[in-house]
Amino acid sequence: MQVAYTPAEIAAIVGAQRTAGSTTRKIGDIASLTAARAGDLSFLGNPKYKAQVAESQATALLLPLDHTGEPRADQVFLYVENPSVALARLCARIEQTLWPKPPAGIHPSSVVAPTAKIDPTAHIGPLCVIEEGVSVGAGSVLQASIYVGRDARIGEGCWVMPGCSIGSTCSLANRVRLQPGVVVGSDGFGYEFVQGRHAKIPQIGSVVIGDDVEIGANSTLDRARFSRTVVGEGTKIDNMVQIAHNVVIGKHCILCAQVGISGSTTLEDYVILGGQAGVGGHITLGKGTKVGGQTGIAYDTPPGSYLNGTPAISYMLERRLQVLHQRLPDLFKRVEALEKKPE
Amino acid sequence: MQVAYTPAEIAAIVGAQRTAGSTTRKIGDIASLTAARAGDLSFLGNPKYKAQVAESQATALLLPLDHTGEPRADQVFLYVENPSVALARLCARIEQTLWPKPPAGIHPSSVVAPTAKIDPTAHIGPLCVIEEGVSVGAGSVLQASIYVGRDARIGEGCWVMPGCSIGSTCSLANRVRLQPGVVVGSDGFGYEFVQGRHAKIPQIGSVVIGDDVEIGANSTLDRARFSRTVVGEGTKIDNMVQIAHNVVIGKHCILCAQVGISGSTTLEDYVILGGQAGVGGHITLGKGTKVGGQTGIAYDTPPGSYLNGTPAISYMLERRLQVLHQRLPDLFKRVEALEKKPE
Amino acid sequence: MQVAYTPAEIAAIVGAQRTAGSTTRKIGDIASLTAARAGDLSFLGNPKYKAQVAESQATALLLPLDHTGEPRADQVFLYVENPSVALARLCARIEQTLWPKPPAGIHPSSVVAPTAKIDPTAHIGPLCVIEEGVSVGAGSVLQASIYVGRDARIGEGCWVMPGCSIGSTCSLANRVRLQPGVVVGSDGFGYEFVQGRHAKIPQIGSVVIGDDVEIGANSTLDRARFSRTVVGEGTKIDNMVQIAHNVVIGKHCILCAQVGISGSTTLEDYVILGGQAGVGGHITLGKGTKVGGQTGIAYDTPPGSYLNGTPAISYMLERRLQVLHQRLPDLFKRVEALEKKPE
Repeated sequence: MQVAYTPAEIAAIVGAQRTAGSTTRKIGDIASLTAARAGDLSFLGNPKYKAQVAESQATALLLPLDHTGEPRADQVFLYVENPSVALARLCARIEQTLWPKPPAGIHPSSVVAPTAKIDPTAHIGPLCVIEEGVSVGAGSVLQASIYVGRDARIGEGCWVMPGCSIGSTCSLANRVRLQPGVVVGSDGFGYEFVQGRHAKIPQIGSVVIGDDVEIGANSTLDRARFSRTVVGEGTKIDNMVQIAHNVVIGKHCILCAQVGISGSTTLEDYVILGGQAGVGGHITLGKGTKVGGQTGIAYDTPPGSYLNGTPAISYMLERRLQVLHQRLPDLFKRVEALEKKPE
Repeated sequence: MQVAYTPAEIAAIVGAQRTAGSTTRKIGDIASLTAARAGDLSFLGNPKYKAQVAESQATALLLPLDHTGEPRADQVFLYVENPSVALARLCARIEQTLWPKPPAGIHPSSVVAPTAKIDPTAHIGPLCVIEEGVSVGAGSVLQASIYVGRDARIGEGCWVMPGCSIGSTCSLANRVRLQPGVVVGSDGFGYEFVQGRHAKIPQIGSVVIGDDVEIGANSTLDRARFSRTVVGEGTKIDNMVQIAHNVVIGKHCILCAQVGISGSTTLEDYVILGGQAGVGGHITLGKGTKVGGQTGIAYDTPPGSYLNGTPAISYMLERRLQVLHQRLPDLFKRVEALEKKPE
Repeated sequence: MQVAYTPAEIAAIVGAQRTAGSTTRKIGDIASLTAARAGDLSFLGNPKYKAQVAESQATALLLPLDHTGEPRADQVFLYVENPSVALARLCARIEQTLWPKPPAGIHPSSVVAPTAKIDPTAHIGPLCVIEEGVSVGAGSVLQASIYVGRDARIGEGCWVMPGCSIGSTCSLANRVRLQPGVVVGSDGFGYEFVQGRHAKIPQIGSVVIGDDVEIGANSTLDRARFSRTVVGEGTKIDNMVQIAHNVVIGKHCILCAQVGISGSTTLEDYVILGGQAGVGGHITLGKGTKVGGQTGIAYDTPPGSYLNGTPAISYMLERRLQVLHQRLPDLFKRVEALEKKPE
């Protein structure tokens, strides 16, 4: 991880409530309990791995307050309320060291239209294109090679990574984070079939992205036919997710990689979609709906649904049907036997 | 939508055959029948929503010629042959206002090889790279940050959005539209397994894209092993679609988002593939074949097929099997009961 | 293919052991046995097409040593050990003609940090951004519009195509080939759910890519939460493949297009994943595991497994269940008949 801390420094960063053991080593890397070697930090993030702590070669370990057991020689235990959260805090510190926020200002190689309003505390890295009427808020970072179309709006504290394209009139609220290659505001996929040809329906709406949204690499979000495609506050979207035109996604949803959502569909708050799931058009997934990977959904779901399979059915039923499905060879034999039974 | 029209202006733009009602308002946005508020335009695009017209708060409504019912106070009905087409016409007008065609010329920040032939009416935006021997036809627009490889050919009236990459020797015909991040002409995925290693088979063919094709954001089209990967005239491809090497796609097909087509497969004209469908290699989908979302096809299909499921079977059979599949618990019980029946 | 060779030149390039027949034509294109016309080269890559040789209009044909049959007038047979390998050798030659390696040096439009170490034999094309501490090895080519983050390392003989983004601290070994739009080192998708919100877990690890790896267009590889996401030597990855954080991929694997692999999963050597397959998190696919297209895998697999379906089961069982599944309507009828049978 290209940095090194003493266990005491780590204890201070993570706010450890107490420690046990001692070492003279510095910590230079992080690893899982089983993979860690001398000089590494490890952590017990999930109680089911508790037995691995005693065997771990890690020099320092983040452990829950109620953990029993003693450190070995040259090993330090750091007790914290939530080891995962503690590790995140440490990683955040390392992150700032590894890639510090770039300084304010506009790189001279970028092409910025005269009417664009760039806050003086924002950073516009090299080789960006910022069109007329764009606004970029305080402290936002556009790393490099980013396109921002006419009249688009980027709020405060956003971080946009290389190769993203933000279409005309689209907007990011505050603290939005786009991984490399995200496309916001491509045209929705709409055509009228007229005289044997697909005639394009203009797509003149926009995409509106709420506070604290994160979008994964190479994901695509289409602009609305008219009005807005929406991603609600706090929603997190993984890599290569496709959001069609006029989709409305609620707050604090989780969309795993390669999910696709068809046009005009609504996801209420706290929906979770597993990887490669596909959601049909013009439907509503109720609040807190959970959907397994590769599931295909074509109908509305009530709040709190837990679905799986294509077509999507309740997770418990799907699991039961899978078992019965695999017993089909047996069932066919049993029916054959019944048919052969003398009357 | 950042523009405003009087209902009379809209009637003129869409060619309304007659109007009813009146208002002094200007129209500043477009919305569905149920979402529309005062000041909005709405439309009846699908007869099944007819009952919503009477309740709509829209100030102006595009309605079919045979629509019965009267406008309310401060509301205008605009009667047209096809409200969807009429709306598209209006949106096209708005589109021109929102993002007018950029002026002819080459932005000085672009890197254009001396032997490239750029029509004087074409627009090459900022930070593009145009290699030796490329030609760009009359009126074509390359927005920004686009790569065009050696000897590639872009026809007339094309529109290429930011971040696209068009590989060496590939060609776009006329009026082709590429959304951001499209890759045309990546290497086909071909290897020979020799002595425990995958040895690359060079991919020296090209990609040939016909007139009026549109390709969605971040889609990828591989160049042929040799000869050509082809996309026929008028075909529309959604976001994140994968077209492998030597695929030949006919005219006026529709490929929804996240579809994948394996190498050397042929789609005849008017094929429609639902989102996330996967098509195997070296097969032919007959003219007008329709395929549901997430379907997996491994065999040739006769013209006019309508398929669903993995493995793909006829849509009607698939629907029936889905129903029976969900009745498996019942079937197992019934067989058990038969087995227990005394002889 | 924009080049032309005499059959004698081709025989020399591919190392033909003997020839039969003669022609005065030059060979200007390559095509399959059935598509080839006069002036084309064709080849018998798969014995099942042997009967097509006699009908082929190709002027020159690459054939296996044991092929029987005589060339027609104005036709040349070139006998080689492996026609596919021979064709690859010819195509490699053509490739060098079509897109020769660009000269060493850094294009003046690129933005290269002062502490970056670019080997003098490397080529940095136009409009690239190379951050502080990056190293690029001998003979590597960065074509155009590529972003390389701080302290990333690119080995010798790599070829990186336009629009790729290589994140901070990530590394490519030697002869790695990235197709356009690849993202290496996007953040892993990790959050803690705290007080109704998803709090980001910093992702401070890296991505390490081995020798001779090729990665397809618009694929994404997330950096590890900590430590490393790994792609082993000789592995080939197709377009739009998603590799989550902390995934470890062995040597000489094949990942077809649109595959997704969830976090912390391990693929041992020689694993093959069909297109659109999805692999769950925290599992291990044993050496040589083969997986059909669209398969969904949630559990460890023993070495040499051959799986299909969602949930994945053995390929042979899956095929059998598919047959029985389609006979469900019949089975329901048979059970009904049994139930109606008088006692």
